[in-house]
Amino acid sequence: MESDKQTPIRIALLGCGVVGGAVATLLTANAADLAARVGRPLQLVGIGVRRLDRDRGLDLDPALFTLDSEELVTRADIVVEVIGGIEPARSLILRAFEHGASVVTANKALLAEDGPTLYAAADAAGVDLYYEAAVAGAIPLLRPLRESLAGDDVTKVLGIVNGTTNYVLDKMDSTGAGFTEAVEAAQALGYAEADPTADVEGFDAAAKAAILASLAFHTRVSAQQVYREGITEVSAADVQAAKDMGCVVKLLAICERSEDGGVGVRVHPAMIPRTHPLAGVREAFNAVFVEADAAGELMFYGRGAGGNPTASAVLGDLVAVARHRVGGGRGPGESAYADLPVLDMGDSRTRYFVSLDVADEPGVLAAVATVFADNAVSIETVRQQQVRASGDDSYDDGQRAELVIVTHAAPDSALASTVETLLELPQVHEVSSVMRVEGD
Amino acid sequence: MESDKQTPIRIALLGCGVVGGAVATLLTANAADLAARVGRPLQLVGIGVRRLDRDRGLDLDPALFTLDSEELVTRADIVVEVIGGIEPARSLILRAFEHGASVVTANKALLAEDGPTLYAAADAAGVDLYYEAAVAGAIPLLRPLRESLAGDDVTKVLGIVNGTTNYVLDKMDSTGAGFTEAVEAAQALGYAEADPTADVEGFDAAAKAAILASLAFHTRVSAQQVYREGITEVSAADVQAAKDMGCVVKLLAICERSEDGGVGVRVHPAMIPRTHPLAGVREAFNAVFVEADAAGELMFYGRGAGGNPTASAVLGDLVAVARHRVGGGRGPGESAYADLPVLDMGDSRTRYFVSLDVADEPGVLAAVATVFADNAVSIETVRQQQVRASGDDSYDDGQRAELVIVTHAAPDSALASTVETLLELPQVHEVSSVMRVEGD
Repeated sequence: MESDKQTPIRIALLGCGVVGGAVATLLTANAADLAARVGRPLQLVGIGVRRLDRDRGLDLDPALFTLDSEELVTRADIVVEVIGGIEPARSLILRAFEHGASVVTANKALLAEDGPTLYAAADAAGVDLYYEAAVAGAIPLLRPLRESLAGDDVTKVLGIVNGTTNYVLDKMDSTGAGFTEAVEAAQALGYAEADPTADVEGFDAAAKAAILASLAFHTRVSAQQVYREGITEVSAADVQAAKDMGCVVKLLAICERSEDGGVGVRVHPAMIPRTHPLAGVREAFNAVFVEADAAGELMFYGRGAGGNPTASAVLGDLVAVARHRVGGGRGPGESAYADLPVLDMGDSRTRYFVSLDVADEPGVLAAVATVFADNAVSIETVRQQQVRASGDDSYDDGQRAELVIVTHAAPDSALASTVETLLELPQVHEVSSVMRVEGD
Repeated sequence: MESDKQTPIRIALLGCGVVGGAVATLLTANAADLAARVGRPLQLVGIGVRRLDRDRGLDLDPALFTLDSEELVTRADIVVEVIGGIEPARSLILRAFEHGASVVTANKALLAEDGPTLYAAADAAGVDLYYEAAVAGAIPLLRPLRESLAGDDVTKVLGIVNGTTNYVLDKMDSTGAGFTEAVEAAQALGYAEADPTADVEGFDAAAKAAILASLAFHTRVSAQQVYREGITEVSAADVQAAKDMGCVVKLLAICERSEDGGVGVRVHPAMIPRTHPLAGVREAFNAVFVEADAAGELMFYGRGAGGNPTASAVLGDLVAVARHRVGGGRGPGESAYADLPVLDMGDSRTRYFVSLDVADEPGVLAAVATVFADNAVSIETVRQQQVRASGDDSYDDGQRAELVIVTHAAPDSALASTVETLLELPQVHEVSSVMRVEGD
């Protein structure tokens, strides 16, 4: 692998959007430092794009741009893929491996859908596959999981890994705004796409959860195996109910080992206490808690998206892969030896917050408590308060009360069927808010 | 480098105190997982100790223990050094390199005093030197700096890297205890040594700051070059003054690039606002902020000491080094190409909090403000309040006032000479508290 110190390492960049533009700019601006750190210069040999006539506002040689990415990857030592999505990214990455190039990618969707195929191709070619930027942007998180904690046993990963939804929920929490209004605010600031589906429905976070679970537990988890619930159903009333409980609503990615040796991987909104460190993660920031047997509790915090933060992670990988080109060796490959079953969501143990609008009459609490007991769900706290009758009351004329219940941990299926049965009770007018509770 | 998958990688452990015991225990307990992650079994071939007759309460084969560490290192593929201190650790590590072994160490003092010698010896032998556990215990911090951020430009590292002093200061803050009382509480819990000098005088944090600055800025910084001020002079009154300011006192390790291209590296107590994330780091936990050009602000949090947390970091390094034994390659060597000058503390730009006990008479504020102006130190806020005369007043009979001043950032030397001149003012009875302010 040793070769002349002046021979550049050839870098092909696929995609030149916000992240690609930042990567290209930093590669050029920091060329001297990068060369000193790698031991050889890094030379950007081409940028694969879909359109040549677009003004990207970048100070780059126009001759670098090409429409022929298939050709470009054959003349690179390292291919940086920041196109995103499944195709053509996958085909181009596999083609890069076939031609002996290592790959640095930020493509969470592809890794979560088809990571093992990529790993196998990298292995077959004896080259590197790095993807720190795929999860939590600038935050060094995957390298710590893949390497720093490789001698420990990770038991849980709990994090805010989608900046868009964190911005939306933070806005709802701080201003009392409804979901739609908060999404519009996020769009106005560029934190949310015109079509925010991938973020607000939790697809983005689910892909990241799959990657985190795979690395943390040395097993294979695909995005399809992740239980996913977005934030579109989170109402201003839910956020207010959380506030009344001393909690805040966050979209969490949760990966955990179960006692029987399986792994639970889920993405859903949850209430967490305001005293929990994740509660203080504001705006579009990301933060991830990791619990390991020997290390105990660790937290990583930083910017989860944006051109420069994501480019920082890409360039860190690029330096690592380039050092291997200079000095030999390869980074860690897939580690999936543990081969653990992924739990059904119904078997995941969670806690529920349930707020019920009930008739204010004797025996209601007993009836409600019986439903919980019948489903073997233990109640942690219950608060009952009279509701003043309002003019637009659409229910009967009787007095009403609100029952606010927080359960102990129980299988999610038991909690779901509890809520279902509660709805059938004649004394229950409405289940006004149901949300999982995390972070104790 | 490829060899039979069943041939064990031989591990020699030097030292069997709290950390060594945890490493040995985890190596044994997690043997199957470690073998799967490395690709070959890790075999503990010996433990070098100073006494054979000590009962360590460990379930280990007594035949592993030896007094002859010099011999032990010659029959290992990887040497784990957790003796600490300069000698015999340094000689044993160099001997290990000479015999072709890679080294994993937790020895901050040695790395901060003589890191370049170790790097050079590892390079000459073509083997690895890893030391994640030397700073911030279980928290993956050095690998992120050495690798994840290798494509970025780190501008500042600001952290709580000594758990003992954080426990002491947290205790003083939460209970109003004085320094001595808080140290005794820390000793009772095992957070402080019988002789707490290395911690409370900042030597431990200074060694860690030297390592962090070297990695962050790609330059050499030794412990001797770090400005160091411990917490022994921090009084209950200082802690209370910080509280009155909405601040908390922390012992901080600060590494920063200056505008003229030098690096400032310092360890001292400082007030930080209670809204700052580091302010919430309680008890013996560690946390480190890293600012980089592209990544922005990152934070790492976790346990900075203790047997198992430190062992987690050691084992992570051990797996990385062992993977290199299996698959070839080496981790990053020393990166000191930037070769930056280390600033004198006097040239570091900091902010000061100064509390003065002054005569309550016209012109005092003007006189005090003139001293600041003469030293070219700009005042950010000043608060003046009358002090009720107390019975045990040892000053003159006149009314007294308290002046509380917070400055803008200025060279530390200008601030120091400001305080010195203030003491000479006839109107100033006493400078009751002086402390640097960080974290805005």
